[in-house]
Amino acid sequence: MTQLGIIGLGKMGGNMRERVRAAGIEVVGYDRNPDVTDVASVEELVSSLAAPRTIWVMVPAGEITSSVIADLADRLEPGDLVIDGGNSRFTEDALHAALLAERDVRFLDVGVSGGVWGLENGYGLMVGGDAADVERTMPVFDALRPEGPREEGFVHAGGVGAGHYVKMVHNGIEYGLMQAYAEGFELLEKSPIVSNVPGSFKAWQRGTVIRSWLLDLMVRALDADDDLSDIEGYVEDSGEGRWTVEEAIANAVPLPVISAALFARFESRQDDSPAMKAVAALRNQFGGHAVKSSE
Amino acid sequence: MTQLGIIGLGKMGGNMRERVRAAGIEVVGYDRNPDVTDVASVEELVSSLAAPRTIWVMVPAGEITSSVIADLADRLEPGDLVIDGGNSRFTEDALHAALLAERDVRFLDVGVSGGVWGLENGYGLMVGGDAADVERTMPVFDALRPEGPREEGFVHAGGVGAGHYVKMVHNGIEYGLMQAYAEGFELLEKSPIVSNVPGSFKAWQRGTVIRSWLLDLMVRALDADDDLSDIEGYVEDSGEGRWTVEEAIANAVPLPVISAALFARFESRQDDSPAMKAVAALRNQFGGHAVKSSE
Amino acid sequence: MTQLGIIGLGKMGGNMRERVRAAGIEVVGYDRNPDVTDVASVEELVSSLAAPRTIWVMVPAGEITSSVIADLADRLEPGDLVIDGGNSRFTEDALHAALLAERDVRFLDVGVSGGVWGLENGYGLMVGGDAADVERTMPVFDALRPEGPREEGFVHAGGVGAGHYVKMVHNGIEYGLMQAYAEGFELLEKSPIVSNVPGSFKAWQRGTVIRSWLLDLMVRALDADDDLSDIEGYVEDSGEGRWTVEEAIANAVPLPVISAALFARFESRQDDSPAMKAVAALRNQFGGHAVKSSE
Amino acid sequence: MTQLGIIGLGKMGGNMRERVRAAGIEVVGYDRNPDVTDVASVEELVSSLAAPRTIWVMVPAGEITSSVIADLADRLEPGDLVIDGGNSRFTEDALHAALLAERDVRFLDVGVSGGVWGLENGYGLMVGGDAADVERTMPVFDALRPEGPREEGFVHAGGVGAGHYVKMVHNGIEYGLMQAYAEGFELLEKSPIVSNVPGSFKAWQRGTVIRSWLLDLMVRALDADDDLSDIEGYVEDSGEGRWTVEEAIANAVPLPVISAALFARFESRQDDSPAMKAVAALRNQFGGHAVKSSE
Repeated sequence: MTQLGIIGLGKMGGNMRERVRAAGIEVVGYDRNPDVTDVASVEELVSSLAAPRTIWVMVPAGEITSSVIADLADRLEPGDLVIDGGNSRFTEDALHAALLAERDVRFLDVGVSGGVWGLENGYGLMVGGDAADVERTMPVFDALRPEGPREEGFVHAGGVGAGHYVKMVHNGIEYGLMQAYAEGFELLEKSPIVSNVPGSFKAWQRGTVIRSWLLDLMVRALDADDDLSDIEGYVEDSGEGRWTVEEAIANAVPLPVISAALFARFESRQDDSPAMKAVAALRNQFGGHAVKSSE
Repeated sequence: MTQLGIIGLGKMGGNMRERVRAAGIEVVGYDRNPDVTDVASVEELVSSLAAPRTIWVMVPAGEITSSVIADLADRLEPGDLVIDGGNSRFTEDALHAALLAERDVRFLDVGVSGGVWGLENGYGLMVGGDAADVERTMPVFDALRPEGPREEGFVHAGGVGAGHYVKMVHNGIEYGLMQAYAEGFELLEKSPIVSNVPGSFKAWQRGTVIRSWLLDLMVRALDADDDLSDIEGYVEDSGEGRWTVEEAIANAVPLPVISAALFARFESRQDDSPAMKAVAALRNQFGGHAVKSSE
Repeated sequence: MTQLGIIGLGKMGGNMRERVRAAGIEVVGYDRNPDVTDVASVEELVSSLAAPRTIWVMVPAGEITSSVIADLADRLEPGDLVIDGGNSRFTEDALHAALLAERDVRFLDVGVSGGVWGLENGYGLMVGGDAADVERTMPVFDALRPEGPREEGFVHAGGVGAGHYVKMVHNGIEYGLMQAYAEGFELLEKSPIVSNVPGSFKAWQRGTVIRSWLLDLMVRALDADDDLSDIEGYVEDSGEGRWTVEEAIANAVPLPVISAALFARFESRQDDSPAMKAVAALRNQFGGHAVKSSE
Repeated sequence: MTQLGIIGLGKMGGNMRERVRAAGIEVVGYDRNPDVTDVASVEELVSSLAAPRTIWVMVPAGEITSSVIADLADRLEPGDLVIDGGNSRFTEDALHAALLAERDVRFLDVGVSGGVWGLENGYGLMVGGDAADVERTMPVFDALRPEGPREEGFVHAGGVGAGHYVKMVHNGIEYGLMQAYAEGFELLEKSPIVSNVPGSFKAWQRGTVIRSWLLDLMVRALDADDDLSDIEGYVEDSGEGRWTVEEAIANAVPLPVISAALFARFESRQDDSPAMKAVAALRNQFGGHAVKSSE
C-alpha cells in the first residue's frame, strides 16, 4: 500500500495532505505546530513509514528547506526518496540531491502551482529527477494533480532541478500576466469614456482572447470591491520573479515584460523614489523647474 | 421578427452571419465579393430590410469603415441603427455617431473578440452607446455572445466609444499576455536543465495560476511544431496596441508591460536596428571594441 | 541694421533678448507683463520695426502660440518672418506656416535648448524652414548660439517642422539620460558597500565615459543636498517626452528606454497605483497573500 | 622613490604604464606577450621592486584575475599592496582581499574608466579599500587621473569592493546613456521631416542639455559614416551591465532604463527571436493571422 510522509503542514502542505488522503493514500504529516501535526517529531514520522519511504518536504524555501533535507539525510535509509515541493531556487536542487545521494537516498524536485484553490481544483505539478523515481511517486502525483488528462496538469520536465526551473518560469510568466491585466485596469479606471469597469472585466470571461483563470480572479476581486479602493497598491515579491530575471540574464534572454512587472513591484513598496528625486533635482538645475519639498 | 443587415462578410463578418442565422434571426449580408454576398449592393441590402433597420458594419477600420458609414447615412431613415463592429479607434465613434445623428440614425460601437473561434465559441462583446439602442439589439448580441451568463460575454460599457475603448484595452492586455508567455518560452528553450518544453506548457493547462485560453493555444502551436522552428519571429501589429499606449500617455498611465510588448513587435520586423548600430559605434569609439561590418 | 522683435519675455525670452542685444542687435520685446515689456502692445512692436521684420515668438506652446501667430498673420506684411522658438509640437508648424503663407509671411521653427544657463553659455539651436529664411536670420542665431564652431551649436535640420522635431528628440534623449543617472543614484544609495555617493558622482566628471553636462548638474545638486533628502521624487513632464514616444509609435521605432523614463515620471506623481492595487488583489485571490488596507 | 609594478599590458594596462611613467614614477610591467613586457616573469617583476611593493593587476576579470592574485599571494611579503584595476565583479574583491590578508598583503580595488582615450585624457578612478592604502598609492592615482581638481576624477568610495561597485554602476549608467542616444538616432533616421541627422547630433554638442562626451563620440562616428550603414547593429556586453541589474534586484531597486538597455543588446545578437516566434504562433492560432515561414 502506498504511504506518504509530509513535512510542513501550512497553507499548502495541509491541503495537500487532505487531497492525497482523499485519494486513499496513507499520509503521515509532521509540523512544528502541534495543532496540525500527526506525529511528534521527524523521527517518529520516519519510523512510522515502511521502507522504501517517500517524504514530501513542503516548508519555506532557503535555509529551512536545506536544514530539513540535511536532517532527513541523517535519518533515512538507502532507497528512500525525498521530494522538495517548496518554492526552492532550482540551483539548490543539485546540492540537495548530492547530499542525499551520499546515503543513497533519492531526490525529486517538484514545482507546485494552484495556491489556496489546489485542495479543490488539484495542483499543477512540474517534476525534475530520474524517471524511476517519478514512476514510483506517480500515485501521489495523480492524487494531487487536477482531474483530466495527466499531461495537462503534470510534467516530468527533466533531471534534478527541472521541476523548480519550470515552476520559476511559470511564476515569471505569472508576474507578466498580472501586470498586463493591472495596466488594463488602470487605463480603464482613468478612461474618460468607460463607465463600467467591473462589468468590462466580467464580460471578458467568455469568448475573448484574454480569458483566463487570473481574469476570473480579477472579477472575484472586483465583485468584492468594485474599484479596489480598499486595497493599497503595495505588492511583495517572493523570489521566483527575481530568479527568473537573473536566469534570463545568465542566458542572454531579453525579458522586458517580466522584468518590468518585477520592477513595478519594487516601486510599489517605495514611499518615495530616490531615482525620481534625482530627476527632479536635475530638472531644477537646468531649467529652474520647481521641485516639491519632501516635507 | 428580428432582422439584421451585415456589411462585410470576411473572416469575421461571414462567421457572424452564420452564428446569428443559427439563432433564428433573418440576416441579409452584403460584401463586394460576389461569392459570399446575399445581395448585389448596399442599396439592395437597405431595401430588403424593414424599418427600423439594424445594420452591422464589419469592414476594415479606418477609411473603409468611415466611407461605409457615410454611405449608410445617405441611405437610411430616421430610427434606423448602425453598428460598427470593426476594430475602429474609439475616437472615430463620436464622429460617426454625429454624422448619423444628422439623419436621426442611431449608432452603437461594438468591440468583438474571439477571432476564428467565435463561430463555435461565441464572441465576447463590448458595447458603447445609448441604453435603448443596446436594448433593441439584444437578440443579436445574445446570438453572437458565448453561452453562459450574459454578463460573462457581454457588457454595455458606457456611451458612444466605450465599446471600442474596452476592446482597445482588451487588445493591449492581449499584447502583454502573449509577450509574457513568449518570454517564458524563450527562457525554457534556452534552459540548460529543462528537456521537455512543450510538455511543460501542456502541464500548465490545469490547476496552475497561469492557465488561460492563450496558453491552450500555445499548446496547440507546440503540438504542431514542438520548438516553433518552422515559424519566423516576425510579428505584425494592427493598431490597437499602439492606440492603447497612446491613450495611456494621454492619461498619464504608466504602461511598461504593454509598451514593451508593442516595442518587441517593432523590433521583430527589423532586419537590422539603427539604434543598435549607434550603440555599437559608440562602444567602438570609446573602447576600441570591434564592430561587425554590415556586409 | 539688424533688428529683432521678441514676443514673450519669460525665463527664456527675457534672457534671449539680453543675449541678442549684447551682440549689438536692436531688440524690441513685448510681454503682457508691464515690468519687462519694451512696448505696450504687439501693434506697437510691429510698428517699431522696419520691414522686412523678423519676430521671434517665445510663448507657451499650444493655444497661446497659435493665437499669437494668428494675430501676427493679421498685422504683418509680405516678406516679414515669424519664428516660433517655443516648445511647439512639430505637427503645429506646418499649420502655422500655411496660415502665414496666405499673407506671404515667412516662417521658421526653432528648437532652443539650454534652459536658465543659456544666457551665459548660449543656446543650442535646431532650425526648420527654407534656407533663405535661415540665411537672413543668421546674425540672430549667431548671437544666441554658444561660442565655438557654428555647427556645434546650430543646425538647419530640414524644412518647416524639422527644428521642433529635432528638439523633441533632444528632449526624449534627455529623459533617458536623466533616468539613467537617476537609476545609478538610487542603486548607489542602496548599496551596502559604497559610503561616498556624492563623491562618486563628482569623480565621474573627468576622464570617465559618462561625463556630461547633466552629470555636472547632478554634482551641483548633490553639493547642495548630499542625499537629496529635501526633494520629493515628484516629476512633471511637459509634452516633448510624450510626443517622442507617440512619434516612435507612428514610425514603428522601438523606444524602450525613453518610454520607461516617461512612465517613471507618471508613476512618480501617483499617490497610489491602481495597477498595483490590481496585482495585490490578484495575489490575494489565488494565494491568500495578505493585502495592505488603503486606510 | 615611488615604484609601481603592473601585470597586464594590453589596451588598458599598456597605456597606463606609459601615463604613470610620464609622471616620473618608475614602472615595471609584466605581460605574457614578450613584445610588450619589461621583465620575463612575475617572479622577476616582484624581485625588481623594493618592498613595500605596489602591484597593479590589469588583466581580464574572472579566473585570470583570481589566478594572478593567488600567485601574488604566494610571492609577496607582508606590507606589499595589490591593486585590482580590472573590471572584476565587486563580490570578488572581498575574497581576494581575504586571500592576501593571510599573508598580510594589502588590497585595493579600483574601477578605471576612460577606454582608449585614457592615455591622453587621464582615467577616472573609483577606489575601494582602507584609507592608509589609498594614501600611499596617491602618487600613482594622481598620475593616472585626469588633470584638474583631484575629486573630479578620483574617489575613495568606501571599503574593499566599493571601487568596483561604483565602476559597475558607472557602466550600468553608460548602458542607459548610450541606448538613449541610440533611440534618438533611430527616431531621427526614420523621421519623414528631418533631412540632416548627423548635423543635428553635431549641433547638440554645445549649449544643449544633452551635451556629453558620448555625444561627442557619436559625432565622431557619424563623421566617419553618416548613417552608420557600414556597421551592423550587433552589440556585445561584458558583464557590468548584467551585474548592475542583478545588484538592483538584490536591493529591490527598480531599473527599467538600464535593464532595457541590457536586453536591447541581447536582442541585437539574435538572428531570430524565440519569444517572437511564440507571439507569431499565438496570433496565428487565435486570429488566423499569417506567419512567416522560417525558411
